[in-house]
Formats: sequence, C-alpha cells, structure tokens
Amino acid sequence: MGLQDEIITICRQAKTASRKLALVSTEDKNRVLEYMSGALVKNSLYLIKENQIDLATAKNKKYASASIDRLALTEERIQKMAKSLSEVARLNDPVEEVIKSWTRPNGLIISKVRVPIGVIGIIYESRPDVTSDCIGLCLKSGNAVILKGGSEAINSNLAIYKVLHDCLRQGQIPAGVFHLITSVDRKSVGILLRQDKFIDLIIPRGGEGLIKEVARKSLVPVIKHYKGICHIYVDSEADLNMAHRVCFNAKVQRPGVCNAMETLLVHRDVAIRFLPAMIRDYQKAGVEIRGCPRTRKIVKGIKPATEKDWSTEYLDLVLSIRVVENLDEAIEHINKYGSQHSDSIITDDEKNAQRFLKEVDSACVYVNASTRFTDGYQFGLGAEMGISTDKLHCRGPMALEELTTYKYEIKGQGQIREE
Amino acid sequence: MGLQDEIITICRQAKTASRKLALVSTEDKNRVLEYMSGALVKNSLYLIKENQIDLATAKNKKYASASIDRLALTEERIQKMAKSLSEVARLNDPVEEVIKSWTRPNGLIISKVRVPIGVIGIIYESRPDVTSDCIGLCLKSGNAVILKGGSEAINSNLAIYKVLHDCLRQGQIPAGVFHLITSVDRKSVGILLRQDKFIDLIIPRGGEGLIKEVARKSLVPVIKHYKGICHIYVDSEADLNMAHRVCFNAKVQRPGVCNAMETLLVHRDVAIRFLPAMIRDYQKAGVEIRGCPRTRKIVKGIKPATEKDWSTEYLDLVLSIRVVENLDEAIEHINKYGSQHSDSIITDDEKNAQRFLKEVDSACVYVNASTRFTDGYQFGLGAEMGISTDKLHCRGPMALEELTTYKYEIKGQGQIREE
Repeated sequence: MGLQDEIITICRQAKTASRKLALVSTEDKNRVLEYMSGALVKNSLYLIKENQIDLATAKNKKYASASIDRLALTEERIQKMAKSLSEVARLNDPVEEVIKSWTRPNGLIISKVRVPIGVIGIIYESRPDVTSDCIGLCLKSGNAVILKGGSEAINSNLAIYKVLHDCLRQGQIPAGVFHLITSVDRKSVGILLRQDKFIDLIIPRGGEGLIKEVARKSLVPVIKHYKGICHIYVDSEADLNMAHRVCFNAKVQRPGVCNAMETLLVHRDVAIRFLPAMIRDYQKAGVEIRGCPRTRKIVKGIKPATEKDWSTEYLDLVLSIRVVENLDEAIEHINKYGSQHSDSIITDDEKNAQRFLKEVDSACVYVNASTRFTDGYQFGLGAEMGISTDKLHCRGPMALEELTTYKYEIKGQGQIREE
Repeated sequence: MGLQDEIITICRQAKTASRKLALVSTEDKNRVLEYMSGALVKNSLYLIKENQIDLATAKNKKYASASIDRLALTEERIQKMAKSLSEVARLNDPVEEVIKSWTRPNGLIISKVRVPIGVIGIIYESRPDVTSDCIGLCLKSGNAVILKGGSEAINSNLAIYKVLHDCLRQGQIPAGVFHLITSVDRKSVGILLRQDKFIDLIIPRGGEGLIKEVARKSLVPVIKHYKGICHIYVDSEADLNMAHRVCFNAKVQRPGVCNAMETLLVHRDVAIRFLPAMIRDYQKAGVEIRGCPRTRKIVKGIKPATEKDWSTEYLDLVLSIRVVENLDEAIEHINKYGSQHSDSIITDDEKNAQRFLKEVDSACVYVNASTRFTDGYQFGLGAEMGISTDKLHCRGPMALEELTTYKYEIKGQGQIREE
C-alpha cells in the first residue's frame, strides 16, 4: 500500500471512529483519561528508553542544545504529562451542552447544541509531550485525532502513543479515535493536508516556518497559533510604580513564551521619569534593551532598535522600547507591528483604557495587568491547545470548548413551510 | 499601477477602515442602512439602465435563460433589495455584546466581547442583488467588505455599489469600508485570495465549481456554503400522514434551493404502505422519481437511481428514493452521501428521534419537520449570508452573529504572574 493510500485509510478510520466517539459518555472518557495518566507513569522506564534512541540520533546529528532539551523525556516531564491528563479528566465536558434553545411561532423548538468538531489533525515538531496533551484534549472534547510529529521524536511519540492507545479498552472507545503517522517521509504532511473529506481541522504546533507551510498547503481549515509580539503601553496617566512592576514581570518572569512582552511603548510625557529606573532593573536582570532614538537620548549606551525589531518575537531576554507621542501612536504601532496576541495598557484614565480595549485589534487586551496571563489555566478554562492568533472559530486560548462546534437540533410536530 | 498593487491598495484601505467601522455606533450604521434602502429605490431607473448593458452582453453571448434571469434587475427586485437593507437595520447589532464575563481569584475581570471579524472578501457569480445584501450585512456587523462579482454583472454591480457608497456620508462611516473590484481579469480573484495579511475571511457565493476553486487557492480562511443534499427518513414508527405532508413540502414547495430534499429514505416496514400514494402525488406535481431496486418493486415504471444519484443536488423536481433496512442504514446513508446541511426523521419513537439527532452529522437535524426551515429568517435570526456546511466558526445559517468574532478584554489592578 502506498503512502497516500495508507494515510487515506487512517483518515477514513478516524472519521468513522469520530462519529462513535461523539456518543461516548463523559464517565467513560474520564475513566480512560485517568487510566492513561496512570499508564504513563507506570511505563516511564519504557518511555525514557525509547526517548534515548531519539536523543542519541539528535546528538549524532549535532542538534542545538535547546532542541535536544525540548526532545528529552525525564521522569519529571512524564509526571507532568500524566498530571495534565488527570486534570483534563476533571474539566467539564463541553459536548452536549445546549448553548441556546428557543421556540418559533410555528412551534418548532430549535436547540443549538455543542458537538465535537470531528477529526483533528495535529502537525508538530520535536516536543513529545505534545503527543499526550493533544490526545487528552481531543479525547475529552470527543474528537478523533491524527498526529504527525517531527521525525526526530518518532520513537518517543510512538512509545507514548502505544501506551495511551492500550488504555482505550478501559472505556467503550473505538480503537480508531487516535492515530500516529509513523512515516518519516516529508510527503506525508502534504498528503494529510489534502484530506479535507475526512479531516475537519488542522492545528500546526511549532515554529513560524511550520505554521506558514501548513497554512499555505492545507485544503483543510487551519487554526494558527502564531507568534506573540506582545506590547505594554505605559500611558501618560499611568501609576508608574504599577507600570514598573507589570513591565518587569511581562518581560522577565518567563521570556521564552508567547505571552511575554517583546516591545514596551511609553508615552513621551512620562518617559524621562519612567525609563531610567526601568531600564536599570531590566539590565540588572540581564535584559538586552534595543531603543528608539528618544529612548537612547534618555538612557545612554543602548543599542538602537531597527525596523525589524518591532516585528520580532525574541522569546528571550531582549526588549525593544519606543517612546510614542500619544495613545493614538501606541495603538497604531500595536496594530501595525503586533501579532494580535496580547497587549496591555497601564493607565488610571478610564477613557484611555476604553479606547485601548476597543481599538487594539488583538485576541487579549489588558488594562493594568501583565500580558503573561494569556493562558487557558490563568483564564480559568483549563488545559489548552495553544493561543489562537486567528480570528475565525476561536481567538486566544483554545481550550476544550474551542475544540467543539455546534449543530442545530430542531423538533417539530409535522411543520411544513408555506409562503 | 499593476493589478496586484491595485488590489493590495484596496485591501490596505479596507483594513484601516475596518478598525474605524468597528467603533461606529449602531445608530449611525442603522441610519446609513435606511438611507441606502431609500437610495436604491430612488435610483432604480439608473440601476435598470446599467443592468440593460449587462443583459445585452449576456444575450449576445447566448447565455442560458436561467443565467439571464439571475442577472436581471427589475423594479420588483430592487424593491426587494431595498427592503432587505431596512430589515437589516432593524436587526439587533451583535457588536459589543458581552458574551461572558467572570472574575478570577486574583481579581482580574475577564470579559469575552463580540467584535467584527475585520475585512471580509465576497466572491460571487452573476446575481447583482448579492452586492447590496452583502454590503448591508457586513456594514451592520461592523465588517469592511471587498466584493468581487462576476464579470457578466459588472455594470449592474458597479451601479449598485456607487449608489450605496454615496450613502456612507450619512453616518460617520469611512469611505474605505467597502470596495468593488472592477477588474474583469480572472487573475484578480487569485490575487485577492492571497491577501491574508489584510483579509480575515473569504466567502464564496455561487456554484460548486467556484467554491471549490476558491477553497483550493485561498490563503485566507474560507467559509463554504456548499451544496445541500438533504434527506428525509421515514421511520417504521412514523405517522405516515405527517410523513406524506412533510415529504411533499420538502421536495415540491421550492425545489431550486439548498434546503429542499433530494433523497427520501423509507424504512422497509412502511415502504409498501407509504410509497405508492407518496409517489403518485409527487408524479402529479411533476416530480421525476429515481428509485432503488426495492422502490421499483413497490411502484412500477420508475427510473432506477444510480450510485451518482445519491450524491446529486438536483435543485429541481427530481427525487431519489431508497428503502432502507433500519435506522442504522438510514444514518449511514446520510453521513456517507449527504452534504452535512439539513436532514430530517419522521417518527413517533423518541429513542429513534434522539439517535437521529445525535448520530446524523449535519448542521441542522430535524424531527418531524420539513428541511425547508433551514434559513436565517425561519430560525428567527434574520437575514443571512448563506448556510455554512463547514464545521469551523459557524454551521448552518450564517447571520449577523456569525459575521463576528470575539476578543477578551481583561481589567486588572496591577496583577503580575508569579509561580
């Protein structure tokens, strides 16, 4: 059987299984999730052994140490994956929720009911924990899932997949609900992206290159979890102590994640008071500053920010700073250079706050808080697939509810249409 | 300026204007919509004159009479377009609705607020009334719109566009909120579909060929309003009088629309009692029947249905009929051959009804009612863009609410993330 036929067979099985999974009870899904959680821990030696094969190859190929770190499975990481699955078991099941229900004058009762999306394809890079996270979220939301991980993690992914797949028989869940594409042929991704007859949604998880390639090639709808070029704007009416605290947190607390701040915008009226102490503290924390000409006038010895800096996601202890004329210029900067992820204003002026909330076109807009809160858990939504920077279907944290769609169930007593 | 630069300029203007339009008050939008409605009627002679040019060309090119009919603007059709705009003015404005709001333990107040999508591209065929319908719906939902109609309707579309565009100054609405691509170069569609930096959503409106082409080429997310292969399944537990009435309505009342029935499925236990009278009445109404072998045994002289019939949207007085073993076979048939649009079961058995509602994977699933109710007005949602057969973002009628997305507005008092 050729690669294409093989993948189509998998897709067809997933579609059939997804229709059965949509009917499985919450209890059955939760029991399996809890069982999976235990199975990961129980099999951690096996998982680590298989992971060693991938690590050895990666080292032979002289991968960067950051890549090798992302690839590595440790006891602690396996514990974390297991805990995630238990947590997903404890989240509310979104399936079957009646979103709205109403009766028409002709007596038709219309209910808008939450249902699983169907079959979700996940295309990801080297992190093997994505395998168990995605299986857990898709299972709980009633979706079949087809996983295509990076070839560098193939042994780790296959081991996790096998351990979790063995748990399905603990509930009345058909075996076809999840699949791992094991072919390392690069063509397999292209084939998968053309299966719009069977796959309802593709989620790419990884770097910019992967996401762009998937979006360009896919006939299946894609939800992109794109980069986070997040801003904080310190307004002329800001409480500068609060601004200092929040801006420090947004950059320094965990710089390698998408909701960390990459560019700080400061109103010209407070720049001289605000920036010197702020920059001093950043530098003490090891942050490299790249400033606009005005910033560099206020604090000497700072690297200049280039045009490219304004649209760069550093994911590191680097920060670009720009002094702006006013709120308008701040909003314009964010809408031009940002990635519609998370942006915050620090201000005590209610009118400025409202304008920022309304006019900044991003998934999450904040007043007087760190951008670091853009996260399923922090929002109280639980585990998530990522942060959608798209505008269709879902925006911001993509949690269980966002892994569902709806259908209209309409009950009549023989109504016909006349007109 | 080349075609590509021209289209990119238009897209950029639309993006900028969309951000301003998102802030325009409901009152301003409604005033402009009412004014537009009046302007269409006032300018009907001009519209008809421009339409004559298109009609003359179409007749010269020997277009089919159905195409020429779709293209024609009459006083009556212009009245209808005007009435639609007034109706949209009277619908609730979905923008700024707080969908949900909650406070986190750390004091952050999170609100999920409905906002416009941004810039919507509409690619359509010959019907010029689509021009005003789309402008009305997009304006009310706060979206900028870029229209690309069929070249055969270019003069009509341009005339409607000019009349409506002139009304914008009646409200504080920027001129860039709607655009009509006037180039008849086929390349313009391809260029438009690559502008994912500026356009947030593409909606193709037209036949299967157009929709497939757009979906294949687009880098921008597409919502497809695909064909409607709608079924009614007459269960063994059906009230056969009701079934007769509903099945007649779903096929005959208006066969040329997407929510009309194309295939009738009948449980074998009631086929002999149900089909003879049903088929007699269909034939009296001019319906051509194509039957499965069992149907043709029960009623003589019927054309055989081929495999292709089960997946054909006739949009005409043609119906395929199949006798099935049981509910399972009916559900399987619908999920295999249907288009996930609208399907109905006629039954008095609550358990069978529930199974049908849950297991048929379609946007609208009915019990004891005609499929013809799948429609924005019939659902009480008002005017719509069409019926989405996709599963992401929206399913079924795409009305004003479905032309919006959301953002999270988060208010804090200086919260930072610690862990």
